[in-house]
Amino acid sequence: MSLIVMKFGGSSVGSTERMQRVATRILERQREGHQIAVVVSAMGDTTDDLIDQSKALNPNPPAREMDMLLTTGEQISIALLAMTIHQLGGKAASYTGWQAGFRTDDKHGKARITEILPERILGALAQDQVAVVAGFQAMSEDGAITTLGRGGSDTTAVALAAAIEADVCEIYTDVDGIYSTDPRVVPNARKLNAISYDEMLELAHLGAAVLHPRAVEYAKHHGVQLVVRSSFTQNEGTQVKEEAEMEQGVVVRGIAFEKNVARISIKGVEDVPGVLANVFGALASGGIDVDIIVQSGISNGKADFSFTVNADDCEAALGVIEGLRKEVPYVETSTESGLVKVSIVGAGMVSNPGVAAQMFEAIYKQGVSVKMVSTSEIKVSCVIEAEPLQEVVRALHTAFGLDTSEEAFVGGPKERR
Amino acid sequence: MSLIVMKFGGSSVGSTERMQRVATRILERQREGHQIAVVVSAMGDTTDDLIDQSKALNPNPPAREMDMLLTTGEQISIALLAMTIHQLGGKAASYTGWQAGFRTDDKHGKARITEILPERILGALAQDQVAVVAGFQAMSEDGAITTLGRGGSDTTAVALAAAIEADVCEIYTDVDGIYSTDPRVVPNARKLNAISYDEMLELAHLGAAVLHPRAVEYAKHHGVQLVVRSSFTQNEGTQVKEEAEMEQGVVVRGIAFEKNVARISIKGVEDVPGVLANVFGALASGGIDVDIIVQSGISNGKADFSFTVNADDCEAALGVIEGLRKEVPYVETSTESGLVKVSIVGAGMVSNPGVAAQMFEAIYKQGVSVKMVSTSEIKVSCVIEAEPLQEVVRALHTAFGLDTSEEAFVGGPKERR
Repeated sequence: MSLIVMKFGGSSVGSTERMQRVATRILERQREGHQIAVVVSAMGDTTDDLIDQSKALNPNPPAREMDMLLTTGEQISIALLAMTIHQLGGKAASYTGWQAGFRTDDKHGKARITEILPERILGALAQDQVAVVAGFQAMSEDGAITTLGRGGSDTTAVALAAAIEADVCEIYTDVDGIYSTDPRVVPNARKLNAISYDEMLELAHLGAAVLHPRAVEYAKHHGVQLVVRSSFTQNEGTQVKEEAEMEQGVVVRGIAFEKNVARISIKGVEDVPGVLANVFGALASGGIDVDIIVQSGISNGKADFSFTVNADDCEAALGVIEGLRKEVPYVETSTESGLVKVSIVGAGMVSNPGVAAQMFEAIYKQGVSVKMVSTSEIKVSCVIEAEPLQEVVRALHTAFGLDTSEEAFVGGPKERR
Repeated sequence: MSLIVMKFGGSSVGSTERMQRVATRILERQREGHQIAVVVSAMGDTTDDLIDQSKALNPNPPAREMDMLLTTGEQISIALLAMTIHQLGGKAASYTGWQAGFRTDDKHGKARITEILPERILGALAQDQVAVVAGFQAMSEDGAITTLGRGGSDTTAVALAAAIEADVCEIYTDVDGIYSTDPRVVPNARKLNAISYDEMLELAHLGAAVLHPRAVEYAKHHGVQLVVRSSFTQNEGTQVKEEAEMEQGVVVRGIAFEKNVARISIKGVEDVPGVLANVFGALASGGIDVDIIVQSGISNGKADFSFTVNADDCEAALGVIEGLRKEVPYVETSTESGLVKVSIVGAGMVSNPGVAAQMFEAIYKQGVSVKMVSTSEIKVSCVIEAEPLQEVVRALHTAFGLDTSEEAFVGGPKERR
């Protein structure tokens, strides 16, 4: 008998029929002989509807009251899911975040978990009940309702799994698992059987937003084994764990890409100490997320550097830089929008030099030039022209031996490699 | 400076505009120099919508989960009201039932208050915050969310007023106060300045459902002074308190009536001990509310008796009686539907014999015959034919000196009396 945490997102419980399917799924898992705790998000559009209601009354509401409002979304989900499980003949009890023992600091809207007191949940499990826990929400030390911010429900599931020492935390979603790249772009993208926490973090940050990075970090830190799988099929999904074995000779696990990237270059910057801190501090204060930063060489005491932002933030970023011109003198700025960032990720590349060169080669063969490069131990990212993105990703997918063949898909020997 | 509890029902906060009006009202009261705690119900149709959602998934859901579901309605209200107060420049914090310290037994759906721990609310008031408390909801000893059942938000307001020793508990509603009778039936019905708890209880039970009887009982028991007043006007409303002064020579405070009454008569019942307990026990078990019961004399060891039920329950009641025929032999039953119950209520009638006779006289003068009579110390009820109801109520209103004149309405001397 295993102890399993099953997490369902808002789209998985967004209708009567889906709620029933989730309840059925839970009871199937329980009948296999497991103890089941469930974490569930707010249904479908509930959260957006609540936000709309609040904006009509106060465009800038206190974070404490926003938490009070939004947590009703998950509370509705857990009650309805518990009722549905009862209707199907099971036993279930629902628990809000505070009832499930989630304690946080008092940073409303983005609270950090300080402690989990899972006695009530363990008590329910001991009585063969399905414990249905509201994701995203908790209670501060002084008894106020708090929320965990973005990725909150994934984090709730992982943190609960750690607290009750679950054998596995299953994240149910609308895809089959983690793929080697976006199957909409590369039709023979491969569903991965396993991936390491670090690889998942790189992929998650790069846009394959099936699983929130914060939850992956929490899982890595507490050694919680994750499985990402579909709410709609019985497929096995993808394991996320400390060490995921690579197939023989494969160094890249997956390929991610992010559209709508803009590059901003600042030329002829007076190279005084603290200049970078000045520029990027001001951008951060302006709420602008900067991704890749590249500084080229210094000549005559002046430096050129470039960085990327989401194209929607480009104009705001230029405004911030213009505003700094007195403190940070420079010759000129230039921008280029309509770019994409494509990244290869894989723990195997640590011990395989030449992977970056192989990437550049594959991109070059598509007639595309590389604008910027950024590397980490398990990742190489290139900023390139937006077109032809699909051809570039497909070429990389093939070049790094990720294409699945008919035989591979049904578990037989691979055609290539 | 007074400490005031203000209670607003669901229709008072049912739209953006109404929510803003309520927040404005609260801040006006605070600027008069008072400390303000507010109790609010779920907005408009929220509760019905939640019930519909649950029925689609489980027609007979566990009461614990129903409480979990329904309490989100008030939680949404308190968050939005607190936000609105902030938007208007005030300070407010919202509190769920459990946060406000409401503790109950574990009878989900109809829990009884066991204790109130109002420290958090008193703390907010001490900081000049408006404490916005969710009506209807609480927490059981083992930490489950409970609801107080019908009239729950009125009860929350009164219980909170008792716990924080408020000077007054103001119940805001869509009418100006308590009237001597229904103004839709008697256009010159008089708004009462004051009424006693006992009179209010009789009127509330009799259908003037502005204030739930349970809340009135709680107020009487704890000596909480109530005021019923309008959310929409600045009128003074009606005080509900221990001793409400009667005007000189007036013995009746108000006239209530209830339509859709059916009388059931059972004739020739074997007069064995326990026969009444048998019949009315079985009706109660069948969920049928019996109101007036009249037993006429016994002859030859056989009794006739009659009782009233809501006409919708008439057939079910006859079925229950038929099912008892072996245990409780009788000769025949007869029924009469389409009746009304009209009642006069007033503490003054205790010391005024002849009030009942005066009532019968007024009814008789309208050509209406009295079918049944029931009396208490401060009430006389008659079951009569449904038509002409309006004329009967108007006649009683006039006969007992309740009509308001133009002068009376603006505060001048009364024309009559």
